[in-house]
Amino acid sequence: MASVEVTDPMSRLRSDFPIFADIRASRPFYYLDSAASSQHPVVVLDAMDRYYRHSHANVHRGVYGLAEEATGIYETARRHLGRFIGASDPAHEIVFTKNATEALNLVAQGLGRVLLTPGSHVLLTEMEHHANLVPWMILQEQIGFTIEYLPFDAEGLLVLDGLDAMLERASILGVTLMSNVLGTLNPVAMLSEKAHQHDVLVVADGAQFVPHFVTDVSELGVDCLAITGHKMLAPTGIGALWARAEILDRMQPFLGGGEMISDVRLDGFTANEIPHKFEAGTPPIAEAAGWDAALGYLEEVGMGAICAHDRSLTSYAMNQLQQRLDDRITIFGPRDVTKRGGVISFELADVHPHDVAQVLDQHGVCVRAGHHCAKPLMRQLGVGATARASFYLYNDEQDVDALVDALLDAYRLFHD
Amino acid sequence: MASVEVTDPMSRLRSDFPIFADIRASRPFYYLDSAASSQHPVVVLDAMDRYYRHSHANVHRGVYGLAEEATGIYETARRHLGRFIGASDPAHEIVFTKNATEALNLVAQGLGRVLLTPGSHVLLTEMEHHANLVPWMILQEQIGFTIEYLPFDAEGLLVLDGLDAMLERASILGVTLMSNVLGTLNPVAMLSEKAHQHDVLVVADGAQFVPHFVTDVSELGVDCLAITGHKMLAPTGIGALWARAEILDRMQPFLGGGEMISDVRLDGFTANEIPHKFEAGTPPIAEAAGWDAALGYLEEVGMGAICAHDRSLTSYAMNQLQQRLDDRITIFGPRDVTKRGGVISFELADVHPHDVAQVLDQHGVCVRAGHHCAKPLMRQLGVGATARASFYLYNDEQDVDALVDALLDAYRLFHD
Repeated sequence: MASVEVTDPMSRLRSDFPIFADIRASRPFYYLDSAASSQHPVVVLDAMDRYYRHSHANVHRGVYGLAEEATGIYETARRHLGRFIGASDPAHEIVFTKNATEALNLVAQGLGRVLLTPGSHVLLTEMEHHANLVPWMILQEQIGFTIEYLPFDAEGLLVLDGLDAMLERASILGVTLMSNVLGTLNPVAMLSEKAHQHDVLVVADGAQFVPHFVTDVSELGVDCLAITGHKMLAPTGIGALWARAEILDRMQPFLGGGEMISDVRLDGFTANEIPHKFEAGTPPIAEAAGWDAALGYLEEVGMGAICAHDRSLTSYAMNQLQQRLDDRITIFGPRDVTKRGGVISFELADVHPHDVAQVLDQHGVCVRAGHHCAKPLMRQLGVGATARASFYLYNDEQDVDALVDALLDAYRLFHD
Repeated sequence: MASVEVTDPMSRLRSDFPIFADIRASRPFYYLDSAASSQHPVVVLDAMDRYYRHSHANVHRGVYGLAEEATGIYETARRHLGRFIGASDPAHEIVFTKNATEALNLVAQGLGRVLLTPGSHVLLTEMEHHANLVPWMILQEQIGFTIEYLPFDAEGLLVLDGLDAMLERASILGVTLMSNVLGTLNPVAMLSEKAHQHDVLVVADGAQFVPHFVTDVSELGVDCLAITGHKMLAPTGIGALWARAEILDRMQPFLGGGEMISDVRLDGFTANEIPHKFEAGTPPIAEAAGWDAALGYLEEVGMGAICAHDRSLTSYAMNQLQQRLDDRITIFGPRDVTKRGGVISFELADVHPHDVAQVLDQHGVCVRAGHHCAKPLMRQLGVGATARASFYLYNDEQDVDALVDALLDAYRLFHD
């Protein structure tokens, strides 16, 4: 597929995103950090503004019309998100959280406390984001169990040699659908099938994957999926956990407070039904309205088209980086673009990634530099940090060209 | 003080709040539910919109200018909130959470796990919101300790007879600064002083108090304070915990993930410095920008003026309700308006609070009805639910008059 066919119609969408017009009016602006956080189409900003101007009240407990309207907006967003990822019971299987990290902590504490004892094993991968590592380590300190890790190879692909033996020992498998550093797309449908053969539940981190690919939880076969809004055109301050209803039913409450109870006495409490059992206190209502609008926008563009665009642009970028920078650059992760998503981590020879990012910034090119909240992965790569460019539907080949131009300049700057 | 002197200049502020113009254009609208969630001045909506249109990127780890700008906005909001409540180290003593409930869960888990053993006592009050009850009950189930309760009297005031003996046994005192049902303002400065004499740390729920009164944590003498944005003109999706730096330093991490660590290895992690130690994952960035604007608005109006306005309106409402409804209404909580904030819970004789709220809604009067997330308090009052009207800076005597007119109509409707 020639990338020009795909990227051109897509990058016209950029005019839907006010930040590009606003910033580009004053300076060059090539935003290549959507894996950290995406930008927002005007429909999302309008949805939140409209909510605050017309419909705001606290949800669930209000008897008056305005509160019922706010509740309707919030619950509609829940069902929409459930349908977006193929949930079979959208009204009950989505728990809104503040971010994907909270969703993973909720699983660790809510499910982990039910399933795990000091003799248990939790199987993670060495490419997990800290969000799917530290919650398990915190729980491990509290109740004690063993954590094992699936390694990855030089291409950034999981090494599955010991998988069956590890699953035999495990109660939970935690795995990212897509690495935020390597871009690796993990074979999660196969892993889920194998895990279930060993009665292992699968907790997937979907923060990077869900914004960029058609997601169907039943095809993936996972039991829990953590998602975040702000990487998929939605506001900050909202994320979600999807889990099958029977898993949510089994899970213990995590955050205690209003709304998550059906009764509270001085000597204890009775938890509410799902999903409210896990939503203590006033939830992110306006943020849910914004996420709902973001889902509508993504659906209108089409997740298939977005995926094809990301892949085409990733392919173009991999080629340009290698052709124009040659042995001056090391790209981490799979070479095969069908095995990776639209993030490219790299090292420029003898230039610290922070210096790379700073020089790029002078060219208006925004990339991330650092450990990307994946320190064990960094250690495995043998580096302290990488620079990382990431793509989304508003990026095009001009962004990639600007990136490569700026990298050539950075290289010259530090080698002359 | 004649209420007309205070309420008139204040209610002119209503034009700063788009929702009043937007809804009133089509129907009567008397919003008396700010204790559940307040409305938003246009400066708050504009601050969020401006953030998304000009400055959005993920915070803390970005090397490029836009990410540094977003980080600056977020950290400025933190310091502003710290100063707003009199924190001595605003940059380090504020932890942003998703709501006050999360803040109280953070204290229970973070501080409770350090201080409490099976022999310990936690002292709470019978008027606490579920948010300051259930987190302690969840921790109690996990590690075991005793919870005791300070009762309240027929006026809705805490009974302090057994206080010294209870404090002698306790490690932590959890108390609300203001009851969300009774309106009671608790004598927290005195309680803190007594608690500290017994080496008891004080965890205050400030969700109702901070939006309406000048708050100075050093005058209150508390050790931790939970706050929420959406009850003080700020967006949904953000709250905060304030605690003295040395308390935060002692607390264990609660949510694990990115940003809250300084290192992660396969065999464990090292926590970051405060306040980042407690902020896992992408925080509510736009929401912080909105809260910052809300604080600026409140400061411009003046918290002293807001407090005086609330008190004047509460006084007018108590008088009108009693004079015009007489023995058809029972008002809960202190008679003395200097001992209560601007929430009035009541029962209309022989009419269920939900029916009251529904009839009121037909008059455009928005009040809350239910257990107000304070079931133990309800049991103590001997009721299953109350109706509750609450006031804020945009309310005036017309709102109160509409409330009383509608209550008279509701009474007639159910008694004719």
